[in-house]
Amino acid sequence: MLEELKQKVLQANLQLVKNKLVLFTWGNVSEIDRESGLFVIKPSGVSYDDMKAEDMVVMDLNGKVVEGDLRPSSDTPTHIEFYKAFKNIGGVTHTHSTFATAWAQAGRSIPFYGTTHADYFYGDIPCARSLTQEEIEGEYEKNTGLAIIEKFRGDNLDPMAVPGVLIKSHGVFAFGKDGDNSVYNATVIEEVAKMAFITEQLNPDVSRADQFMMEKHYQRKHGKNAYYGQKK
Amino acid sequence: MLEELKQKVLQANLQLVKNKLVLFTWGNVSEIDRESGLFVIKPSGVSYDDMKAEDMVVMDLNGKVVEGDLRPSSDTPTHIEFYKAFKNIGGVTHTHSTFATAWAQAGRSIPFYGTTHADYFYGDIPCARSLTQEEIEGEYEKNTGLAIIEKFRGDNLDPMAVPGVLIKSHGVFAFGKDGDNSVYNATVIEEVAKMAFITEQLNPDVSRADQFMMEKHYQRKHGKNAYYGQKK
Amino acid sequence: MLEELKQKVLQANLQLVKNKLVLFTWGNVSEIDRESGLFVIKPSGVSYDDMKAEDMVVMDLNGKVVEGDLRPSSDTPTHIEFYKAFKNIGGVTHTHSTFATAWAQAGRSIPFYGTTHADYFYGDIPCARSLTQEEIEGEYEKNTGLAIIEKFRGDNLDPMAVPGVLIKSHGVFAFGKDGDNSVYNATVIEEVAKMAFITEQLNPDVSRADQFMMEKHYQRKHGKNAYYGQKK
Amino acid sequence: MLEELKQKVLQANLQLVKNKLVLFTWGNVSEIDRESGLFVIKPSGVSYDDMKAEDMVVMDLNGKVVEGDLRPSSDTPTHIEFYKAFKNIGGVTHTHSTFATAWAQAGRSIPFYGTTHADYFYGDIPCARSLTQEEIEGEYEKNTGLAIIEKFRGDNLDPMAVPGVLIKSHGVFAFGKDGDNSVYNATVIEEVAKMAFITEQLNPDVSRADQFMMEKHYQRKHGKNAYYGQKK
Repeated sequence: MLEELKQKVLQANLQLVKNKLVLFTWGNVSEIDRESGLFVIKPSGVSYDDMKAEDMVVMDLNGKVVEGDLRPSSDTPTHIEFYKAFKNIGGVTHTHSTFATAWAQAGRSIPFYGTTHADYFYGDIPCARSLTQEEIEGEYEKNTGLAIIEKFRGDNLDPMAVPGVLIKSHGVFAFGKDGDNSVYNATVIEEVAKMAFITEQLNPDVSRADQFMMEKHYQRKHGKNAYYGQKK
Repeated sequence: MLEELKQKVLQANLQLVKNKLVLFTWGNVSEIDRESGLFVIKPSGVSYDDMKAEDMVVMDLNGKVVEGDLRPSSDTPTHIEFYKAFKNIGGVTHTHSTFATAWAQAGRSIPFYGTTHADYFYGDIPCARSLTQEEIEGEYEKNTGLAIIEKFRGDNLDPMAVPGVLIKSHGVFAFGKDGDNSVYNATVIEEVAKMAFITEQLNPDVSRADQFMMEKHYQRKHGKNAYYGQKK
Repeated sequence: MLEELKQKVLQANLQLVKNKLVLFTWGNVSEIDRESGLFVIKPSGVSYDDMKAEDMVVMDLNGKVVEGDLRPSSDTPTHIEFYKAFKNIGGVTHTHSTFATAWAQAGRSIPFYGTTHADYFYGDIPCARSLTQEEIEGEYEKNTGLAIIEKFRGDNLDPMAVPGVLIKSHGVFAFGKDGDNSVYNATVIEEVAKMAFITEQLNPDVSRADQFMMEKHYQRKHGKNAYYGQKK
Repeated sequence: MLEELKQKVLQANLQLVKNKLVLFTWGNVSEIDRESGLFVIKPSGVSYDDMKAEDMVVMDLNGKVVEGDLRPSSDTPTHIEFYKAFKNIGGVTHTHSTFATAWAQAGRSIPFYGTTHADYFYGDIPCARSLTQEEIEGEYEKNTGLAIIEKFRGDNLDPMAVPGVLIKSHGVFAFGKDGDNSVYNATVIEEVAKMAFITEQLNPDVSRADQFMMEKHYQRKHGKNAYYGQKK
């Protein structure tokens, strides 16, 4: 069942290691097949070195395991909320990558300081609020997803235009058209987080770059007249 | 004698190199066999590249070499104090890993700033006090262990719930259920030390994360109803 | 056509990856054949892993593709302005390397703090101004080149004596006698940017090194009595 | 002539690359044969990738090339001054390693903040003064050596007890009993420089560690009753 997708999700998870976004088992990637409404996700706490495509877990959006012998990632309920709320995404990545997690721990959105950021994120990379005690003691992972969705709805953000988010005192979630693309965006977040950190150290009074620069860079890559890359 | 344990301890020591926690010979791992009361430790000042299982030194808790041609790590008396005081630990790692050692040199405990920390440490990662001149000029390595034990007893800390510690102006000791697990925890300390450093640079007024978040994250991995990872 | 040059430009682009100056496809190198007035440049948005010499695009200085099936780098109009304005350069590199881009985002030139800098740059590494809204919404990439040329002309800088530049809120352009040499200079910029960042953190009151030291170091490598390296 | 020494010096130079102390050709190692009064040094500006033992240059302490087809390192006159002034050293390393060079650019000695430092350096790692215009325009490389020797004599330092030094606005020189040992000490300097940088960021009011700790750590490795490592 969904053999090709399991292979894709395995490869996307291994890309986390290659892109130096994870230590040990600290990250996970899923991808959804919108037609069947099923998604495939990494098993919980399994080493990337040992994982095989058949270890990937197939699930439905009610949180039921449809196929697979292993428990799914403990963050699965967060992924489910994203797939239910954001119809245009196809993949989700979660990491504790170093610099981005430090921004999350600092409780700060990553400001738009330059074109590297604007090439992928149409606006600051937001930081969602802390969960309340009730939310944490209840359905914690689900509530993590809901707090992030609340942030996107409240700020009127499109998760494909701002394909990633921090959550206070925790880490990173990134979105994409598929699992691999969400890993790509998680990688961009880590690099942009590092650059923004150094930028502020070099110039504590730095302000955001110009909005018309964001417009230009985002549109030349993602707009309808995009001219970056090859014709598809 | 204890051939399997020597092999395990060798592998745990080599893991220090793989996890980028040591330069040259600056680290050591030991593991105890509680049944016989003997432990196995890295020889002193030997390059990781050349080490073999048979170079590992078998010792008793009186500091007597039971088997092995090489001198044990100069930090052996510190390991012994830990095994005597902390009955629930099975392994000890010592490193001078970069960011954690900088916190030790700064004389500061690493504050709990997020879930990466709480997933492994139930509270701040403590920094034990400097040794006095008398302690340093006397049985220095033994006194290092005693100062750390004093910190754990004084703050009522369980070394398996807070499986690592800094010691002022020196470096890191990490604990675990075995040698390999203590290396794992030493690796977490370095990553958490780096994240906390960047966090404070990004937000000098940052405060600790919520206690109920620590509770949740620690318990979901280590509590009796833990649901992270696969059933054992 | 220009087969040897395509091979050289491919190798120079791959050197960006080896020298850790680029993530994904975030950089490009070109080299000009002054005799024919044609230059060879990386195709746009193509992964370094998959590139072959035959993918390189041959262009003239009017921006016309002379040979090649792929679109050239979207930064091509910037390269063209450099080749037209700076007759003594033979290669151009563009990167978003981490530390140098942070200086660009901070809107700061990199001050001359030591001999590592002076060995390659005869003066600060300048930071060109932000583009105006009009310049960005118009021929953006061409205007990027023009703003940089304006900086070099205004400050009376020779692009072979100061073979690199930052542009505000964006990244790095480096020059060289050929493509490979421009990659070399881009690599120096990143290292010098990192050193200068740490230098300022260690000593916020640091001032530039002495001008006579710059003179000495630059001339011993690049002056007519240069004595660094082997006789050519 | 001195074939074994050329092989050793080649290996020590390659170790610079392995230990990540150099970019391109930015470092060199030499070792002296005290019996013959000849030393072997890296050729100037030659890539580490291409170097062979036969490329190493054999020289006497008057600066005369005794054997070798290539020009010696441009820093050779600095090495010569060290071998003449410091009779107990057998090897010299020069690097522009990132963190140590930043301390040099900041014009600061590296303070003794912990045992990692004290295990190898009996005191702060000193920073020698800037050269005057006259010294730089005259015999620059020789004067670099003399300024460092002046620092060691003025502060009554033994180059085997403090086996390395920074020079203002420039970089690092390290000493050792042979070439390989001087590379080892250069590696320690870079690591200690990084740790000390982070330490000060974490605690701007940090003070030096206790002198009796330095005494203990230095003596347990290097004193006459040293007990670190294996019996020789």
